[in-house]
Amino acid sequence: MAARLPAKRDFPVGEVRRYLEPGPVVLVSSRLGDEANIMTLGWHTVLAFSPSLIGLMISSGNHSHRMIRESGECVVNLPTTRLTDTVVRIGNTSGADTDKFAAFGLTAGAASRVAAPLVRDCHANFECRLHDDALVHRYDFFVFEVVKAHVAAFPKHPETLHYTGDGVFVVAGKVVSRRSLFRPAML
Amino acid sequence: MAARLPAKRDFPVGEVRRYLEPGPVVLVSSRLGDEANIMTLGWHTVLAFSPSLIGLMISSGNHSHRMIRESGECVVNLPTTRLTDTVVRIGNTSGADTDKFAAFGLTAGAASRVAAPLVRDCHANFECRLHDDALVHRYDFFVFEVVKAHVAAFPKHPETLHYTGDGVFVVAGKVVSRRSLFRPAML
Repeated sequence: MAARLPAKRDFPVGEVRRYLEPGPVVLVSSRLGDEANIMTLGWHTVLAFSPSLIGLMISSGNHSHRMIRESGECVVNLPTTRLTDTVVRIGNTSGADTDKFAAFGLTAGAASRVAAPLVRDCHANFECRLHDDALVHRYDFFVFEVVKAHVAAFPKHPETLHYTGDGVFVVAGKVVSRRSLFRPAML
Repeated sequence: MAARLPAKRDFPVGEVRRYLEPGPVVLVSSRLGDEANIMTLGWHTVLAFSPSLIGLMISSGNHSHRMIRESGECVVNLPTTRLTDTVVRIGNTSGADTDKFAAFGLTAGAASRVAAPLVRDCHANFECRLHDDALVHRYDFFVFEVVKAHVAAFPKHPETLHYTGDGVFVVAGKVVSRRSLFRPAML
């Protein structure tokens, strides 16, 4: 797989909405002690540009929940359609009994600001630190700050997976610009 | 426009993730007293199936913010790509000086559980009541319960708009099923 790892460059954390606002399925990687894990996640939203805040609903039924809650960190990784089957397999196994990096041939990379691993096979990696846990007990909803972003230089708008439930995804990729209809202050 | 209003049927509120989890731009309609308004929104997430909870980040800079906060209600409407230009125009005008239903030729409909109007031109309408405002003061983040859902019978997976910033959308529509790779309990 190594030959297919996309080369990344630093990306401004205040602009991660380009990749997350469209609502793709993401892979959330975490580390607690010696253990690393990956989960799929479709329930997330952008919350603010500066600081760069995002909200993730990480169900307590997931093995990753406690790892993320106790470490206060994670990495949000953006898979493209090339990883469709891997995304499904990650979502259908548990870190309680599976080393998902090994089982699915994924390459872990060292993050720069958190201990959780990057999933290097993905198009983008957003290193996150827990910012606010006020809604964790009620809704498993974590507010994270994106503290470092790494994004593949090309393509600018990769083909991404968006989950609808029931085993079915819709794919986003076709780009439609309406810049000319926007007021400059709205861009 | 009347001839193009999609016929809707009741849809289970516990299944609205089919339309919202993919992360489309939505139109949020509201009413306060005699005034109705519509805004575009891309910062939202599903939070729970039962009760059917969703989270919306509605910036206080929007005219709709106070209307929604004071009424405790809104309707989340799902536009398809047929409404692309209208979506952009709604997002680039303010309810403070524009009656958006009139200005953009949209048809308001009566909701059954809330006073806020449905945008009948949209593929789906989700009537929402405020469930939790704990994060409104810090992040403009509202937790709503979807109390009634109306969805066009066809197509099951409409072509939707997903905003990336900078005047650019990606379109989701192509359907990819991986049902056969899912454990039954995960469907």
